[in-house]
Amino acid sequence: MSLEEEIPAIFLDKISPRGLEAIKKTKKFVEEYCNPADEIFFSQVSQDPEKRWKSNPEITEHLKKKAQELGLWNMFLSKHYPEGPGYTNLEYGLMAGYLGRSFVAPEATNTSAPDTGNMELLAKYGTPFHKKTYLKPLLNGEIRSAFLMTEKGVSSSNALNISASAVKNPKGNYVLNGVKWFASGAGDPRTSVWLVMVKTSNDESNPYRNHSVLVLDAKKAIASGKAKVVRPLFVFGYDDAPHGHCEVEFNDYEISAEEMPNVMLAGEGRGFELIQARLGPGRIHHCMRTIGAAEYALLQVAHRASHRLIFGKPMKDRESFIYAFAQHKINIQRCRLLVLNAAHKIDISNAKGALKEISIAKIEAPRTALDVMDWCIQMYGAEGVSQDCEIARMYALNRTLRIADGPDEAHLAQLGRSYLKGFPAMDKYFADKKANFEKLSKL
Amino acid sequence: MSLEEEIPAIFLDKISPRGLEAIKKTKKFVEEYCNPADEIFFSQVSQDPEKRWKSNPEITEHLKKKAQELGLWNMFLSKHYPEGPGYTNLEYGLMAGYLGRSFVAPEATNTSAPDTGNMELLAKYGTPFHKKTYLKPLLNGEIRSAFLMTEKGVSSSNALNISASAVKNPKGNYVLNGVKWFASGAGDPRTSVWLVMVKTSNDESNPYRNHSVLVLDAKKAIASGKAKVVRPLFVFGYDDAPHGHCEVEFNDYEISAEEMPNVMLAGEGRGFELIQARLGPGRIHHCMRTIGAAEYALLQVAHRASHRLIFGKPMKDRESFIYAFAQHKINIQRCRLLVLNAAHKIDISNAKGALKEISIAKIEAPRTALDVMDWCIQMYGAEGVSQDCEIARMYALNRTLRIADGPDEAHLAQLGRSYLKGFPAMDKYFADKKANFEKLSKL
Amino acid sequence: MSLEEEIPAIFLDKISPRGLEAIKKTKKFVEEYCNPADEIFFSQVSQDPEKRWKSNPEITEHLKKKAQELGLWNMFLSKHYPEGPGYTNLEYGLMAGYLGRSFVAPEATNTSAPDTGNMELLAKYGTPFHKKTYLKPLLNGEIRSAFLMTEKGVSSSNALNISASAVKNPKGNYVLNGVKWFASGAGDPRTSVWLVMVKTSNDESNPYRNHSVLVLDAKKAIASGKAKVVRPLFVFGYDDAPHGHCEVEFNDYEISAEEMPNVMLAGEGRGFELIQARLGPGRIHHCMRTIGAAEYALLQVAHRASHRLIFGKPMKDRESFIYAFAQHKINIQRCRLLVLNAAHKIDISNAKGALKEISIAKIEAPRTALDVMDWCIQMYGAEGVSQDCEIARMYALNRTLRIADGPDEAHLAQLGRSYLKGFPAMDKYFADKKANFEKLSKL
Amino acid sequence: MSLEEEIPAIFLDKISPRGLEAIKKTKKFVEEYCNPADEIFFSQVSQDPEKRWKSNPEITEHLKKKAQELGLWNMFLSKHYPEGPGYTNLEYGLMAGYLGRSFVAPEATNTSAPDTGNMELLAKYGTPFHKKTYLKPLLNGEIRSAFLMTEKGVSSSNALNISASAVKNPKGNYVLNGVKWFASGAGDPRTSVWLVMVKTSNDESNPYRNHSVLVLDAKKAIASGKAKVVRPLFVFGYDDAPHGHCEVEFNDYEISAEEMPNVMLAGEGRGFELIQARLGPGRIHHCMRTIGAAEYALLQVAHRASHRLIFGKPMKDRESFIYAFAQHKINIQRCRLLVLNAAHKIDISNAKGALKEISIAKIEAPRTALDVMDWCIQMYGAEGVSQDCEIARMYALNRTLRIADGPDEAHLAQLGRSYLKGFPAMDKYFADKKANFEKLSKL
Repeated sequence: MSLEEEIPAIFLDKISPRGLEAIKKTKKFVEEYCNPADEIFFSQVSQDPEKRWKSNPEITEHLKKKAQELGLWNMFLSKHYPEGPGYTNLEYGLMAGYLGRSFVAPEATNTSAPDTGNMELLAKYGTPFHKKTYLKPLLNGEIRSAFLMTEKGVSSSNALNISASAVKNPKGNYVLNGVKWFASGAGDPRTSVWLVMVKTSNDESNPYRNHSVLVLDAKKAIASGKAKVVRPLFVFGYDDAPHGHCEVEFNDYEISAEEMPNVMLAGEGRGFELIQARLGPGRIHHCMRTIGAAEYALLQVAHRASHRLIFGKPMKDRESFIYAFAQHKINIQRCRLLVLNAAHKIDISNAKGALKEISIAKIEAPRTALDVMDWCIQMYGAEGVSQDCEIARMYALNRTLRIADGPDEAHLAQLGRSYLKGFPAMDKYFADKKANFEKLSKL
Repeated sequence: MSLEEEIPAIFLDKISPRGLEAIKKTKKFVEEYCNPADEIFFSQVSQDPEKRWKSNPEITEHLKKKAQELGLWNMFLSKHYPEGPGYTNLEYGLMAGYLGRSFVAPEATNTSAPDTGNMELLAKYGTPFHKKTYLKPLLNGEIRSAFLMTEKGVSSSNALNISASAVKNPKGNYVLNGVKWFASGAGDPRTSVWLVMVKTSNDESNPYRNHSVLVLDAKKAIASGKAKVVRPLFVFGYDDAPHGHCEVEFNDYEISAEEMPNVMLAGEGRGFELIQARLGPGRIHHCMRTIGAAEYALLQVAHRASHRLIFGKPMKDRESFIYAFAQHKINIQRCRLLVLNAAHKIDISNAKGALKEISIAKIEAPRTALDVMDWCIQMYGAEGVSQDCEIARMYALNRTLRIADGPDEAHLAQLGRSYLKGFPAMDKYFADKKANFEKLSKL
Repeated sequence: MSLEEEIPAIFLDKISPRGLEAIKKTKKFVEEYCNPADEIFFSQVSQDPEKRWKSNPEITEHLKKKAQELGLWNMFLSKHYPEGPGYTNLEYGLMAGYLGRSFVAPEATNTSAPDTGNMELLAKYGTPFHKKTYLKPLLNGEIRSAFLMTEKGVSSSNALNISASAVKNPKGNYVLNGVKWFASGAGDPRTSVWLVMVKTSNDESNPYRNHSVLVLDAKKAIASGKAKVVRPLFVFGYDDAPHGHCEVEFNDYEISAEEMPNVMLAGEGRGFELIQARLGPGRIHHCMRTIGAAEYALLQVAHRASHRLIFGKPMKDRESFIYAFAQHKINIQRCRLLVLNAAHKIDISNAKGALKEISIAKIEAPRTALDVMDWCIQMYGAEGVSQDCEIARMYALNRTLRIADGPDEAHLAQLGRSYLKGFPAMDKYFADKKANFEKLSKL
Repeated sequence: MSLEEEIPAIFLDKISPRGLEAIKKTKKFVEEYCNPADEIFFSQVSQDPEKRWKSNPEITEHLKKKAQELGLWNMFLSKHYPEGPGYTNLEYGLMAGYLGRSFVAPEATNTSAPDTGNMELLAKYGTPFHKKTYLKPLLNGEIRSAFLMTEKGVSSSNALNISASAVKNPKGNYVLNGVKWFASGAGDPRTSVWLVMVKTSNDESNPYRNHSVLVLDAKKAIASGKAKVVRPLFVFGYDDAPHGHCEVEFNDYEISAEEMPNVMLAGEGRGFELIQARLGPGRIHHCMRTIGAAEYALLQVAHRASHRLIFGKPMKDRESFIYAFAQHKINIQRCRLLVLNAAHKIDISNAKGALKEISIAKIEAPRTALDVMDWCIQMYGAEGVSQDCEIARMYALNRTLRIADGPDEAHLAQLGRSYLKGFPAMDKYFADKKANFEKLSKL
């Protein structure tokens, strides 16, 4: 199928020639390099618990070099960031749809979470120091970063619950305490910078100004002995080494008053503003990758079905397989339209103006993709749950998306409430209807 | 909410100012005239079995006049028909979304089935006689029409099964025999023309050329005593009088050789071509109306929920209500995108080029709308199934859409098969992947 | 299949030989008499609006005579009622499963709602006058009855909302005012008695003692001109004449102080107690009938599928049909077990002791049956929604069961809360687990 | 809740006092010992890849001793096996419901797969040599076993596809070749015996007699170098060490003619018979364990919900949580009835007589349990996918049950076909109905 056929009709005329070129290249790069490289990547992760978190698969650097040669680098940075190539969210969304088909593709193109969101924050709010020390090497793919937000034991979807604290001591230094977890990327030996959401004040009258984001030098923090990557967390049975999702503990980790300007991002008390800014387009990218992953799972199943015999008949000719396959393609397609519509809404207004569209995409895409993947696992039989098939890992990875950045339930509640707000207008509508009924009845 | 907010972002710049104007007018007309008129319409349908099928509610003519004044007339006729206003399918799709919110709105604007499809056929394939005698008064809303296709006892979704026949007798006349049913509109006293799909030959080597469409003068046929509207069929308990879905029987109804040029549409043996031509955009119109109906059901429920107390708490503040409401809005929104994407695909190519998109819309929209309506019925409690609430009737009406014009299953099967065709390419892709894997492994 | 095979294994030894005999006879009676009579019944209901509510199909009396000959009469009355045959709820439940397969079977065996619940109330709480005047002819199938409970505009699932009132006036007479609706059976010309839930006091400190059930002579009330059957309500498009679901209005209908002993049931303020008593086993009977109806729909579809060709292949050999058929059979079977388990729980304790089991049955059975029926409609195509197929009518009828006697939502909420009560015990369990973990860790 | 309350009413009188005693003890043992021990078990599995497969967690032996003291040992062996305690399948089913709540409980009570099925086969078909060498130590919990059935690259649910072969060579020895995978237990250092399904002949006229089951001394086979445990397979990231699901390869592994009597089970060509015999009750045990696991997940969520605040309100008081919790309890309850009904049907007839019931249980239980677990993961948020919560592991483990021993699809197809067989009888029924209709119409 030509790529144009893979783009829903309605979006075709919204893509610039340059964007289309990049989408095509992305597709080709993923197919020729990334899909074949996934297995190599996993075989290069050490099984030895000692080494597992200390080195990175070599294949990644090969791919990064290739991607840079092709100009497929940092495509997530939209026109608002002079540091990036300036694609629209719609264009990058379509690229992300292909990147999601491979485990290694996002890192290979320097578009993987949490680096993307961190780079956006540093580009928008960072000081010259932040930009030089962290943003530049991140943009170059030389270092990696982590985002330390979620905490154990509370519902972090309500960020007011964040309790890790940075309290000024009498010397004017900030002292950090608390435990973060599911800090993605904190396991990576190349991770040099942590963005950490902490509580810096305790003013109940203004609860949305009590939190701040700190930019910490990760190596230095660990070297102090007061900050520690405690353990990797597993997602189902996967530790996702060497990237990892880690528990990180701060015990009286002190930041001197002099250092603070290089540590505080944007300003004390602006934590909520920053995490809001971080979330918008990022959710859309996640959604497109998850859709891409589901499409790839379907592609694998279609291929298998064309060769696999079930009681003497090719799986692909079995009616129930055909029905289910069609339905899953429909389900993916409807998500794609929702997500790309949200991306376009961001492009023509901004993330705030596309709040409902983003929520809808966030609710629908992971859930749908998981359904697709679960069916694909079933079509694979025993192989489907094993390491010989990429889909079980995909499933686990994508399962977290129904929880991260606000669980489905939080988004549904917010969305429902916003829909149901229109009551006075509704009352007027039904009153008018009645009045008009009286008038028309007399005709 | 302003109308622009109700149009998904991605479609906004595809609508001409003239189209937008008409969409706005349609919305206003439906809200001010049609929604209040629905109840009047039903109260004007006679309960007396004698009169029930012999007159039409007066309110309809009032509304038709008003719609004509507003220029809201025959909006379904796309640019391919000089007889119509020339809106795109996307533009008309958005209008149909509003028309679907009222039972009477389609007839009020002369956009109701089966007249729309019949007018399209007569405009495209009709002789001057057809155009003068039938098309013109149909376009003017002076007469109505019926389409006689479905037959009892066979699966009519496979049109090869159509067995009502028109056989040439030795005198060179055609003799019609057979029973049609679910002939929508055949009950209406204003129906003057029937388009009838019949088998005119029996050549097994070319089965798709055995059928023809005849254009019959309905009044004359009935007067002959050889054609008879046997009975109305009910949909759940509704007979939809005076429009009706009828059983029609032909017993040796003869058409003389001289008359035939005025009866045969397009040419003998072209039945399949004609019913294909008739279906494309019409399915999209149905889908948009069903979406509109579902939206209207949600609007009614939201209004009710703002006033109704459930165990002391307004229904609208109940968490499970909020979640469900949000989910149903999402489901409607995703259908809207699918349907409008299909409409746009038709606009930029044609119905044949949008086959997959139309199938997807046809599968998703009615099913989703029915889910919504069923939930709305539940939220209404006992009132929801009764005549005091419009939703049960909507449900019944829309339930037929999962069956008419090909049941869900037929579309799923066709769609699934078309998706699964790409095997040689797929095999190549996976072979390439393996080869690339070998290459990359050696790096 | 032999009847024993149709009874789930686990219930086999819980049925007395006498019960088994009656179940067998019921099955035979339904198959030989009731299923064939259904169509006759509907053809005998007058289409003339004048006569529609004034006479009853003759076939019913034939069937009643036959049922009485066979001893299939009043089987719903359990051992607690000396007036009845004394089957267990389990035994009668299995009979009701067959009775539910036919529209006329319940009335033919004098086991149809609302008479059954009314007879139970009169038998348990009635005065000698009530028993002689109403109960006896009801037991004999000579008259019918209605239950006037639900009211328009409030959520009647919370009976505290019932506001139709019977207020004592200065003369010591009770004056009735208010509007009831969905009073099943109120349309029947043979209905001679109404049981009416009304508010008789207004003591906020004891809200569950403010309501009473009155036993009214229906003919007399109507003759007074102060009570009126206003109109039939439709269920989807069905009015279910001549039985009907009616709106009934009281306008200062007066009951003299002398009459009151013959009117008040059980005692003033005992309304809640009575409606509770009325509901328990009745819900199980409804559930079993709905399961029976679904089974019959599946039987019809299986028969159709064995003869119907879909694109040249019998429907019954199509894989997706087979899968769906199997799944629907499973779904029905799991409901059957839930409902019969509840029936047995009532038998070994009582309705109160089986509260959870009854709620589960009430939630699951109608919803599952509706799913089955909707699929059967789809398998029937156009015929499925029409009067030529019994399933659309079944669907409409059963749709009300998700609303009547407490909507699904009310039952789910109550059930959920009762499950979640066990917290202190749960806390102890998890505390113990932790303590035991410490102990075991030291081994 | 007392245990009697946890047993559905309908089963209460079918449990012997001795059985009830054992069920109670099982519940207590699981709660006091196994649930707290699960975490210890996992902490004792070595993370070192060298040692991971070479030793077993010590805690298991402690628990086994305790279980033996309590008489909770080999409860799976029904009355057909003199070696066991002789509980009915219903009784053991209820025990398995509790055993399923803990990861270690099955092994602690010597009731874990695949040992149970293997012991049943050896007890029923084994020679005195088999019984002494393998069965006795298995019954004592001294060794473990594996079952080598599934093969890579073919659909093993159709056992005709099994192609690993044992071919007689000119010397009269059998030579084994082929690759098995998902051989559960093959990783365990204590596994001393493999039961292997192989193809021993190639007679197309009698395909169900071409396979045999061999009983191999696992240690000896590995020592030969011709049989090799190639690698563990992962289930969503879990390797389930040291038990494991392994790939095992045979390369010209030779069994001498003299050894064969100690190797061949039951007789050459009886493979199909043996695997059929192995499956029946075992599936029910799996189902009850999966239900137990789901119940335990719900228990954990209920506990969490009683303490967790979501936007200021305890999760347990949130309406949507309550609804969902109730629905999941219902779903589990309906599975429990299906599974226990099947168990009882086996008890009163045998596994063959309960074929439909077993299939239904096998389809419903894992799917339902997975739904429950997935919801529980969602209610846990990030913790839910991690190693800090047992539910993700449960999910992975139970996901395999929709595939093993015949995937859902195979069971649905078989079940559907068996339901749809009754056509001649159905035709007669509908012909009779028509005849009776004619008769009744004339009344």
